[in-house]
Amino acid sequence: MPDNGAAAGRRRVVIVGAGFAGLAAARRLGRADVDVTVIDRMNHHLFQPLLYQVAAGAVSMGECASPIRASLRHRRNSLVLMDEVVDFDIDRREVVLDRGERIAYDSLIVACGMQTSYFGNDEWQNVTCGLKTLADAVDLRNRIFGAFEEAERSTDAKSREEWLTFAVVGGGPTGVEVAGALATLAKHSRKGDYSRIAPEDSRVILLDAGQRVLAPFSESLSAKAANGLTELGVTVREGVRATAIDSRGVTIDVGGSTERITSRTVVWAAGVQAVGVTAALARGTGADTDRAGRIQVQPDLTVPGHPEISVIGDIANLEGPGGRPLPGLATVAIQQAAHVAKAIKRGQPGATTPFRYLDKGALAVIGRGRAICEIRGLELSGRMALATYLGVHLFYLGGEGKRLKLLLDWITTRIGNRGSQVIEGELSSVERAPPGEVVPSG
Amino acid sequence: MPDNGAAAGRRRVVIVGAGFAGLAAARRLGRADVDVTVIDRMNHHLFQPLLYQVAAGAVSMGECASPIRASLRHRRNSLVLMDEVVDFDIDRREVVLDRGERIAYDSLIVACGMQTSYFGNDEWQNVTCGLKTLADAVDLRNRIFGAFEEAERSTDAKSREEWLTFAVVGGGPTGVEVAGALATLAKHSRKGDYSRIAPEDSRVILLDAGQRVLAPFSESLSAKAANGLTELGVTVREGVRATAIDSRGVTIDVGGSTERITSRTVVWAAGVQAVGVTAALARGTGADTDRAGRIQVQPDLTVPGHPEISVIGDIANLEGPGGRPLPGLATVAIQQAAHVAKAIKRGQPGATTPFRYLDKGALAVIGRGRAICEIRGLELSGRMALATYLGVHLFYLGGEGKRLKLLLDWITTRIGNRGSQVIEGELSSVERAPPGEVVPSG
Repeated sequence: MPDNGAAAGRRRVVIVGAGFAGLAAARRLGRADVDVTVIDRMNHHLFQPLLYQVAAGAVSMGECASPIRASLRHRRNSLVLMDEVVDFDIDRREVVLDRGERIAYDSLIVACGMQTSYFGNDEWQNVTCGLKTLADAVDLRNRIFGAFEEAERSTDAKSREEWLTFAVVGGGPTGVEVAGALATLAKHSRKGDYSRIAPEDSRVILLDAGQRVLAPFSESLSAKAANGLTELGVTVREGVRATAIDSRGVTIDVGGSTERITSRTVVWAAGVQAVGVTAALARGTGADTDRAGRIQVQPDLTVPGHPEISVIGDIANLEGPGGRPLPGLATVAIQQAAHVAKAIKRGQPGATTPFRYLDKGALAVIGRGRAICEIRGLELSGRMALATYLGVHLFYLGGEGKRLKLLLDWITTRIGNRGSQVIEGELSSVERAPPGEVVPSG
Repeated sequence: MPDNGAAAGRRRVVIVGAGFAGLAAARRLGRADVDVTVIDRMNHHLFQPLLYQVAAGAVSMGECASPIRASLRHRRNSLVLMDEVVDFDIDRREVVLDRGERIAYDSLIVACGMQTSYFGNDEWQNVTCGLKTLADAVDLRNRIFGAFEEAERSTDAKSREEWLTFAVVGGGPTGVEVAGALATLAKHSRKGDYSRIAPEDSRVILLDAGQRVLAPFSESLSAKAANGLTELGVTVREGVRATAIDSRGVTIDVGGSTERITSRTVVWAAGVQAVGVTAALARGTGADTDRAGRIQVQPDLTVPGHPEISVIGDIANLEGPGGRPLPGLATVAIQQAAHVAKAIKRGQPGATTPFRYLDKGALAVIGRGRAICEIRGLELSGRMALATYLGVHLFYLGGEGKRLKLLLDWITTRIGNRGSQVIEGELSSVERAPPGEVVPSG
């Protein structure tokens, strides 16, 4: 008998993943007459929008993540397991954990999110930094500040230049935000820190395979973003594709001709795919998936033929207004969680009415007050964009308000807390490049 | 020609290590008419007294460490290198860095500090956590919070008990403080966080090979400390020696008979030795060293026959009042730094007058307001000890006052910022046990 501490007779809700979607669902079910089990490989909920700021040394780990247990502390009906779901037994209605333990459910909410994808070039994982997990961000932070140290102690001009060159692959929101934060850090925040190098000499290069950065936004906003990046000192290169990456740099294809960019720090922000176990769900239920492995859900967010299984958050593929798939935004995830939780509270296994997304806009932060925002067709840029976006969100999400204010602080101010610029390791470890998920023993 | 950016003719002071001793020396020389080069393997100065609080998830990395560059930011005459000193060329008056670069000095201040010693059992490094570096503390923090998660997800009673048992080897100040913090964390701060386990069921065992914990203190204070630990729920075992340690526990020798303690988390706080390069200094200068590798210095803190070489901080072995060697305290290190800096400012290569330590007391924190303090023969315990000690230090050290207040906060309050309880890694990494110095790439 699977043990999830369920009281006899109460419906058992199992939530896989404690990102924005999973945690929001757990919170909303926290006082319902059901037993909730939340399973996540991490012990923390990550405030993804701040992750790039951790990498830039502007925000500390603790400001960007909070233990799941702390968030669900007073939910008596909730069991939190730091564990990995490896399979779903759809017929027996059980999730299977990595050690074989099974957790039975009456309602299943799958919200396990996306992970970095290297499009088959998995060896790139060892020489680049992704930016999906806290370990990724700490890894990247250590590399960035390590690179400045390496440049300072280097006595060879060429080697210095390599260490002071930062390449960001991928012109989506993450790539743009990282590039902007890197330029802000290197060119505007480190003055006077070094004796042998001038951080403002460092180069930040953003490589985008598409024809314009931030493709999901309108052309004019894309152009504004590119200009903002250039003002900050980022070299924006559109229409270039990375063909090879190693620990010394990136080889790119520029309209057929090959070019080499030497850089000791390469950030990979070019692709994501659904977390592995999503495929197991598709197999078990026969649900369709898209190229990124997202589950094609019905308008009510359930999986075809399985009213007891809901898929929410980034891994749910659902058409929004205008036939465009809903974007992978926290606001979408949280609204989907509320939609499903409401139905379960009503006694249903899952939602039966179509999910409607209330557009709260999409924001991309470039740095030092530069940002672009698209909200219900309205296009904004600069501090106005930040203010509007944050205003909307502070209004809608109470719980996250604290962090959003923090976000605003960091967006509008320079790099702050020097403590966040500490490199955990010794020098030797700066040069090493273990996979992103390696963490201090832990 | 070694490059340390020295202006022609100005005396060159090289400081090895940026702990309390090295950083204090650099600060005091910051406005003197000399060129200062500070070399440390880390990019940060560590506030050692708080390190155990990082491990306990009470203090964040950033609160416990600050970048050396930030501390010396406005010292125009200072060059900071994150680099490793591998040798000293005494005759040519140069320090040799790990890549062969040489830095010339007119005055050398060696303050490279102590590192964890396993008394020849180096394999124990892979199965225990030391507590000398920031990486150690993050490592231990990840293991402690990982252990609670493992216990919560475990379905086997015996395995749960293993994960909920914490063994601390070594009854010195570090061991006592870690044990106290662990008991506070486990038994008083985690209530309600878990469903399957009761953290207060966890066991914290302090193993001391000597006849009493905190041997440097008086017998009555040792007894008070032991009682305080017991009140907190720590099992204090004196006169027991660890004979074998593996990932599942510790084998101890109790007066000839062998006993096994099963524990998934073993903290090693039993020994320290001078950092490796100290031996190179002894070889080069012919200076004597003690069993822990400390350099036997002259009363003026110089090395015999080398007025231009001063050794300060923990690695300096010098008799204090009563013929007892001076303790490895921040206050000793900082006073020694001031003594040497004063002489160098006067134009001397190093001090020529004997160093006199102004006793500011020694403190050991047990937890939840319990502490003992010995100051100029005066013995105090409880909050009184904390108040007196901190009063004295807030009075004497301005710069560190901020952190000491923080220290006071953490000593007298419960565990705070939940953000510091975040585990960076995935579960898999909790079980792994790489060497302490492994850090997220960085």
